[in-house]
Amino acid sequence: MTDPISLPPSDRTRVRRIAENARYDTVTLHAIIDAAYLCHIAFADEKGTHCIPMACWREGNHLYIHGSNGGRLIKLFTQGTQVCITITHLDGLVLARSAFNHSMNYRSAVIYGVFEQVKEEEKKRASMAAFMDKIALGRQQQARPGNDKEFAATTVLRISLDEAACKTRSGGPVDDAEDMALPVWVGVLPFSIQQAAPIPHESCTQVAPGYVQQWEK
Amino acid sequence: MTDPISLPPSDRTRVRRIAENARYDTVTLHAIIDAAYLCHIAFADEKGTHCIPMACWREGNHLYIHGSNGGRLIKLFTQGTQVCITITHLDGLVLARSAFNHSMNYRSAVIYGVFEQVKEEEKKRASMAAFMDKIALGRQQQARPGNDKEFAATTVLRISLDEAACKTRSGGPVDDAEDMALPVWVGVLPFSIQQAAPIPHESCTQVAPGYVQQWEK
Repeated sequence: MTDPISLPPSDRTRVRRIAENARYDTVTLHAIIDAAYLCHIAFADEKGTHCIPMACWREGNHLYIHGSNGGRLIKLFTQGTQVCITITHLDGLVLARSAFNHSMNYRSAVIYGVFEQVKEEEKKRASMAAFMDKIALGRQQQARPGNDKEFAATTVLRISLDEAACKTRSGGPVDDAEDMALPVWVGVLPFSIQQAAPIPHESCTQVAPGYVQQWEK
Repeated sequence: MTDPISLPPSDRTRVRRIAENARYDTVTLHAIIDAAYLCHIAFADEKGTHCIPMACWREGNHLYIHGSNGGRLIKLFTQGTQVCITITHLDGLVLARSAFNHSMNYRSAVIYGVFEQVKEEEKKRASMAAFMDKIALGRQQQARPGNDKEFAATTVLRISLDEAACKTRSGGPVDDAEDMALPVWVGVLPFSIQQAAPIPHESCTQVAPGYVQQWEK
C-alpha cells in the first residue's frame, strides 16, 4: 500500500472539459486500474492510429500487459512507441429533467507514456504470477505453472503511471433551475459488473476451489 | 433491420492474432455497438496519440457521438482526423489447467475512419432523439426537449461502419493434451453487466415510469 500521491497534470493529462471531475491522485488511479481486467491502448504506426483492447494488471506504480513475442503490437511497443492507455468503468445513466442535462456516471483513467520490457527472468515470472493472482487468488498454486518454452514465448511489458489522470462522475442529475418544477422522474439507472455463476468445463472432474465457489456475487 | 453483410477486411481491420476469432459481419458488429453506451476513440494530434472514452450510439451503418461545439476533440474530429474506435465487452475469465492457457471471453469491435458532421438541423435532432431512445425508450416524450440554444451548442458526428472488424471469444478453456489429467478445476468465471435498482434523485417527486421500473434486471 503506497501513500496517496498527487500527480502533477501534464499538458496531455490536464482535463479541460468539466475540469471539476478531474482526479490526479494515485488512490483514485490505482482503484480504477485494479477494478479493470482490460484496458484500451491507442498507438500509431505507418497505417494510422489504432485502439486495441488488452488484458492488464497493476503492480505498484506500473501498469502491465503481456503478449506473444511474435505479435505485431508487442514488437511495436518494445520499440518505444508512444501509447495512451485508457480504462473506463460505466456506473450509471443519469436522467435529468431536460434532454440536454442527461449524463453518465463513470470512472476513467488515462495513462500516457512508453512501455518498457520486463526482461529479467525472475521479475517476468513474478509479474505473470501477480496477473494470475488478480485473475483468481490461489489459482497460481493449482494450475500447471508456465514452463521455460511458454515463458520464452511471452513478452511482459510495463508502463509507468507517472503521466496519468482520472475523470469521474457520480451522483444524480444537475438540472437547470427553470426545469425543477417539471413533472419528470429524475435519478440514476445504475450499472454494475455482476459475477455470475461459474461454468465448469465439460472436461472438469474437480470440485470447485474456494476462489471459484466465491465468484458469484 | 438490415440484412447481414460481410465486410471485406482492410489492411487495418484484418485480424492477425488468433484469426479464427475474427468476425467481419454486420450482425456481430451491430450487436456489439448496440450493447455499448461507451466507446474508446483513438486519435493523434500535435501532442501525440490519445484515447478518450465517449458516449456512442448506432443508427444504420453509422456510429454516432456528440459533444459541445467548444470541445477540443469535437473540433479535431470535424477537421477530418483519422480515428480508430473500439468497443469491448468482457464476458468472462477462462480458467485452464495451465497458467499459459488461461484466457478471457470477450466481444470487441474496431472501427476505422473519419467522422462527418451531422449538420442538417432535422437530422441532428433526430439523431439526438435516437440516442435518448437508446438511453431509455419513452424518455424522449417526458423530458424537456432540447431548445434552440442547446442544440446550437451541440455537435453531432457520425462515422461509417464500412471499415470495421470484430473479434470475439466464447466458451471454455482449450488445454494442451498433456495437461488433461491434471487435477485442476477448469471452466469460465462469467461477468455480466447488471442493471441495479434505480436511484431516484432527492428532488424527484414523480412515480417511476415503466422504463425506470423495468430497469433492474
